[in-house]
Amino acid sequence: MYVLFEGIDTAGKSTQIEKLKEIYPNAVITQEPGATRLGKDLRAILLEKELNISAEAEIFLFLADRAEHYAKVIASNKNKLIISDRGFVSGIAYALANNNAIDLEFLIGMNGFALGGKMPDKIVFIKIDKTLLQSRMSAKSHDKIEKRGIEYLLKVQENMEKVLQKTSIEYIILNAHESIESLHAQVKKFLKLDMESDND
Amino acid sequence: MYVLFEGIDTAGKSTQIEKLKEIYPNAVITQEPGATRLGKDLRAILLEKELNISAEAEIFLFLADRAEHYAKVIASNKNKLIISDRGFVSGIAYALANNNAIDLEFLIGMNGFALGGKMPDKIVFIKIDKTLLQSRMSAKSHDKIEKRGIEYLLKVQENMEKVLQKTSIEYIILNAHESIESLHAQVKKFLKLDMESDND
Repeated sequence: MYVLFEGIDTAGKSTQIEKLKEIYPNAVITQEPGATRLGKDLRAILLEKELNISAEAEIFLFLADRAEHYAKVIASNKNKLIISDRGFVSGIAYALANNNAIDLEFLIGMNGFALGGKMPDKIVFIKIDKTLLQSRMSAKSHDKIEKRGIEYLLKVQENMEKVLQKTSIEYIILNAHESIESLHAQVKKFLKLDMESDND
Repeated sequence: MYVLFEGIDTAGKSTQIEKLKEIYPNAVITQEPGATRLGKDLRAILLEKELNISAEAEIFLFLADRAEHYAKVIASNKNKLIISDRGFVSGIAYALANNNAIDLEFLIGMNGFALGGKMPDKIVFIKIDKTLLQSRMSAKSHDKIEKRGIEYLLKVQENMEKVLQKTSIEYIILNAHESIESLHAQVKKFLKLDMESDND
């Protein structure tokens, strides 16, 4: 089973993935971007500010990372539990936040191609409200994307929800305000992993 | 005017572009891939054989190169004569030669997005037959793609023709057997540049 964890920075994805890892040590834990050797090279390129890469080229670089991630990590582990920190939902949500004139169906089509037609089986989406986001963001150092600001991140989050509504993938929306344990219980129930003794 | 020169290796594109450059010194001469800083980085990545990049990721890397080339070279010179050695026609033709299950319309759509909807105005396609291709190939050193062989290149050439037939862009098909001067005369006539005194 291929599961995406989606949500903007500070929503709590990593914490929930760590909790799952404790009970499913055989799960394949991965992330986008940068999980493959190509992905690491592309990540370095994306962080070179003086390149000032065009928005369209940036979208294709993230798609290249996604395609490589699918080919090298997802496809070869398809019989295992695969937990990915971000995936195509983030890809589309950021692309739309940078240019909302791009057709959503077209973006989904390109992502489907990157994923060899194998979309994730389930998506856990952790949603955070503005107040909590501001509070958590002020406590951490800001990377390139975070510097674009709170409103930008909220726009990305809104786009993530649009993407979820557009595909037929099963998803759950969790509230970042809830306790780590409460969220973990909901994740386990959604993934129906609490009944299983092993995952591969 | 944005003009593409297309054709497989040894067809004679570079020679014809050189001839045009002599009479139009103000023309912007460019090529794909690798004309931008991002393009050079991507070219280096694409040549790293040990990365063994997946076919889909490779397609997206070429699209990223194309998008960046459009943004940094084509868009900013749109009032000049722009002559590009290869472009989206090669991109699609190689993608299909590597995997003929990919939908041609979808590939054209992704390329249109990379080009910001601004497809080339005219395409000069130089076609070469098997005998001449074999003779010319045997005389030069083979790079990565050329090593895939004569049959592969002929398949790419066939795909190039399919792409030309599918878009509404004006094109001319030239015969690589003809003399350099004869081809040059046909190119000038097709581009209607023989009547103009300047090009920008």
